[in-house]
Amino acid sequence: MTYELYYWPDIQGRGEFVRLALEAAGADYLDMARLPAKQGGGVAAMMRLLEPGVTGRFSFAPPFLKTGELIIGQTANILLYLGGALGLAPKAEAGRLWTHQLQLTVADLVTEVHDTHHPLSVNLYYEEQKKEAKRRAADFTQSRLPKFLGYFEQVLASNPRRSGYLVGARLTYADLSMFQIVEGLRYAFPRAMASVESACPLLIELHDRVAQRPKIRAYLASERRLPFSEAGIFRRYPELER
Amino acid sequence: MTYELYYWPDIQGRGEFVRLALEAAGADYLDMARLPAKQGGGVAAMMRLLEPGVTGRFSFAPPFLKTGELIIGQTANILLYLGGALGLAPKAEAGRLWTHQLQLTVADLVTEVHDTHHPLSVNLYYEEQKKEAKRRAADFTQSRLPKFLGYFEQVLASNPRRSGYLVGARLTYADLSMFQIVEGLRYAFPRAMASVESACPLLIELHDRVAQRPKIRAYLASERRLPFSEAGIFRRYPELER
Repeated sequence: MTYELYYWPDIQGRGEFVRLALEAAGADYLDMARLPAKQGGGVAAMMRLLEPGVTGRFSFAPPFLKTGELIIGQTANILLYLGGALGLAPKAEAGRLWTHQLQLTVADLVTEVHDTHHPLSVNLYYEEQKKEAKRRAADFTQSRLPKFLGYFEQVLASNPRRSGYLVGARLTYADLSMFQIVEGLRYAFPRAMASVESACPLLIELHDRVAQRPKIRAYLASERRLPFSEAGIFRRYPELER
Repeated sequence: MTYELYYWPDIQGRGEFVRLALEAAGADYLDMARLPAKQGGGVAAMMRLLEPGVTGRFSFAPPFLKTGELIIGQTANILLYLGGALGLAPKAEAGRLWTHQLQLTVADLVTEVHDTHHPLSVNLYYEEQKKEAKRRAADFTQSRLPKFLGYFEQVLASNPRRSGYLVGARLTYADLSMFQIVEGLRYAFPRAMASVESACPLLIELHDRVAQRPKIRAYLASERRLPFSEAGIFRRYPELER
């Protein structure tokens, strides 16, 4: 079964959390919007699947994943599904829900990162809300960022298995997302991260452990990994760190 | 089994989506933070469960649900669990994921509603970010609100079962959440809702159908239903509608 991932072709964005899970598991997948239209890809093909269709099940926004007849939207929901399908989450209900809970907290953090550069409206350019972005980013780097990373650090420290992973003894999709969070925050807020990283050593160890996995290393070195840019969630605007 | 819900005792907030599911199913539950400390309740008891404990599984923030040894956080995750336990979601995986996807889209909308009054920081009072709140609220009522409600209206219109419910032929927790969304938006943005409601008749019918369920009617008339207020997610600040 080849998974079809549909997401904007030029950015990491929220789709990257799904790409990392597919890559870490060595899953057979196509990044559809990056394929030419003659292979059934492209943005127009993606937009067509954002219409109700015969099933009436369509997403509010990308990313979504197509597998056979099933189309699944919402990043955390896609990972909930892939966690089972790719062995990237515990099988037992309690562990499955706990992994998903962590992912939803990652999603909250991602939304707050996005809003540092778009505090007023997604319909305005960053430049049109730069003054407000500075205030929101200051609050984020001083208060919210340490709070979120402190939480995940405490989750790692409190895992009874002391495995270095967030859940139980093995890698889950939440660990892969945490890798991306650290990468993205280092890109967007290097000064804030430089000052906060010493307070979350387990999180940095987890990041490094994920980065060294052979499949992840190969992915990061490939053209499949898009670069960070000022069109994604994590953006490097030096003025947002004063 | 008595469910224990932990959430702030004075507001509807995100906890209300869980309360509505428990009430609609006639589940046996306790709203713990509203109980006196001598019955094991109160905010202090809730805060203690926000520490790692022996399982190392603790929430970033309320609400969370305790059932036996299991503690589940993140509103949509709690509903994912209760959907199965209380028969408020389809049993088959595809329907279960679709219901959860809709709930995660509700969660995105709820975050945007919250940010209309707190666009810059949760650490500042509304009065300290009122000017920015006006701009964010204008964008929300003019662009985001119609877009979200239009999406859910289209989901109702495209349900192959034409049941008037969002998923399949029966009530799910997503329908209950949609009731709360309509209630909350009518409270917070009455003018915007007055102008947008004619464009989403199926959504309003769904709201009314939920409101007329005997268990929901009884709940809404009881003291268990807290009033809307300017401490919750949905706040009535007339200046945010100009």
